[in-house]
Amino acid sequence: MGGDRGPEVVVPAVERAYERHPSVRFVLAGNESRLAALVAKRPRIKDVVSIRHAETNVAMDEKPSQALRQALRRRRGSSMWLALEEVRDGRAHACVSAGNTGALMAMAKVSLKMIEGIERPAIAAVWPNRRGEAVFLDMGANVEANARQLVEYALMGHEYARIYLNVENPRVALLNIGTEALKGKDSIREAAVYLSNPELNIEYIGFVEGTDIFTGIADVIVTDGFTGNIALKTAEGTASAFVYALKIVLKRTWLSRLGALLAMGALRALKERLDPRSANGGVFLGLNGIVVKSHGGADVLGFAAAIDVAVDMAASDLIGRIKVDSKRVHEIIGNQAKSAEDDTDSGFEAQAKLS
Amino acid sequence: MGGDRGPEVVVPAVERAYERHPSVRFVLAGNESRLAALVAKRPRIKDVVSIRHAETNVAMDEKPSQALRQALRRRRGSSMWLALEEVRDGRAHACVSAGNTGALMAMAKVSLKMIEGIERPAIAAVWPNRRGEAVFLDMGANVEANARQLVEYALMGHEYARIYLNVENPRVALLNIGTEALKGKDSIREAAVYLSNPELNIEYIGFVEGTDIFTGIADVIVTDGFTGNIALKTAEGTASAFVYALKIVLKRTWLSRLGALLAMGALRALKERLDPRSANGGVFLGLNGIVVKSHGGADVLGFAAAIDVAVDMAASDLIGRIKVDSKRVHEIIGNQAKSAEDDTDSGFEAQAKLS
Repeated sequence: MGGDRGPEVVVPAVERAYERHPSVRFVLAGNESRLAALVAKRPRIKDVVSIRHAETNVAMDEKPSQALRQALRRRRGSSMWLALEEVRDGRAHACVSAGNTGALMAMAKVSLKMIEGIERPAIAAVWPNRRGEAVFLDMGANVEANARQLVEYALMGHEYARIYLNVENPRVALLNIGTEALKGKDSIREAAVYLSNPELNIEYIGFVEGTDIFTGIADVIVTDGFTGNIALKTAEGTASAFVYALKIVLKRTWLSRLGALLAMGALRALKERLDPRSANGGVFLGLNGIVVKSHGGADVLGFAAAIDVAVDMAASDLIGRIKVDSKRVHEIIGNQAKSAEDDTDSGFEAQAKLS
Repeated sequence: MGGDRGPEVVVPAVERAYERHPSVRFVLAGNESRLAALVAKRPRIKDVVSIRHAETNVAMDEKPSQALRQALRRRRGSSMWLALEEVRDGRAHACVSAGNTGALMAMAKVSLKMIEGIERPAIAAVWPNRRGEAVFLDMGANVEANARQLVEYALMGHEYARIYLNVENPRVALLNIGTEALKGKDSIREAAVYLSNPELNIEYIGFVEGTDIFTGIADVIVTDGFTGNIALKTAEGTASAFVYALKIVLKRTWLSRLGALLAMGALRALKERLDPRSANGGVFLGLNGIVVKSHGGADVLGFAAAIDVAVDMAASDLIGRIKVDSKRVHEIIGNQAKSAEDDTDSGFEAQAKLS
């Protein structure tokens, strides 16, 4: 029921996703009569869709804490809560929503719980860049992140990139304000020490700066949720300002006006391509279940792409992989932190305790 | 001697600045023979320029800590150190450099010292936006900032904007990940409580997000140096990626190629306009003296613009104004923090102690 256009986008998107994944079955959580009417118009998906009726739905501008309280208080929850329940109770492999991001995260944490060993969830988005795409996390699930949490984000982003970008050894980087080892915050420098451990089997390439986000130098860029949100929004703002200024300068002379007219199609394609918002929504990582957040303004193609992502993640057993990694990573960095504590002569390494 | 092109840019820029400010006198710190040769070619500035010979100069890629150590060890310092000494000893009103930013900041802190009551310096830059320009700080003088430091940045940015943007009551905002009062980090929320105090006489407009940086909603945008650097570099990266993608899409069809050809001048003007780097360098605020950092890649016009900024700041007594403000602001927020401590029932306000 969520997103700017609700089931009018979701149901046609289900049809599209079904064409690509004929073995997938769909549960639609929301207003039964509204959903049934939309499904009835699409006979092809009639037999692969079931509907779970929800009395209410979370408003796009509702406070996450309030939405969560209401969900826990009522016997019959909102469409969002019921969709998550399908995953929690093993009746669905993944939940896709275009609704209120904060509410979805708050409910998902309570309903699905965290994967053992992962302290905090992260929201991962896929950003376009010069060479292709990169996974960027955390986009705002948590304001701050300590070294251990950054390492967890890195391993989750690594697994997600392996599935989404289809690369065996994604290059993982930490976002920082310089590329030298001594730059930035303590938490980032500590995380770098852990990620440099070859036993981890993560291709850690070091620090990258804001300018590197779009160069394609890394497949996974890791940062805390505050910084991730600022970077995303600044990129959005820059892209909008660019388009705005482009329109102005192109109107300035008759020559540039004619030029703009001729190049219009190309210019339109451009904004679409570079706006990180068009890299449809994000996935929630670290939870005991797959949750994909489609962009609220997504159209049918966009929402269908979010379903594709969910199908891929489920088919590749992302959760299982993260569970295995989490166990392995914590053993390795636990030992590393311990040996650093034992060996106080090792300089900077000695500071690398888990915070 | 600093910057990508050294005195070959600085000396002609001095001539330009002199044309605009005939009462200004210039001290050039650096290699005497090289500077004298350049000045000799410009008879108009011969009588307004004096040269202070420096044996060495700081390399653009030198580590700030190393540059500082060397400056303190030698009897005759680098050109950068000598330029700062002119300000410290009252022989100059301001120092302008295109050199190594980190080294300039490290030396300026030691040489000029902080204004009483200001804990940390900040680097302020001027960013273009849809409506004009805005002051953005801290661009990276300090990685982190607590509530008190953010308030100090706000008051310094406020005074700088009054001079640079020539507005009586600049609208001051805190950069955050949402506009609601409860969003973001503790330090930012605490700073918001202080800045909302009407006694401060600062037109505080609340939180802004990354998307707002380019809309012109605020005249002064305040953040910590880590976030400021990430935002700046992300905007740079987005602008570069935009230009890169623009070139590609415009080459795709013969129609768009022709269009691009006709609109070329306009497109070239565009990048210049939106790239925050072209908003030439930054000013160091909070020090007991005026230091303007021109962009390392600045051309003659850019370096002359940096001199203009320095002249304006000196003529408007920026340092004196910040001193007065600092005293007043700390009295007000000191009382506010005290009364918040006394009144533990006042909820969130009670948390607003100086951190």
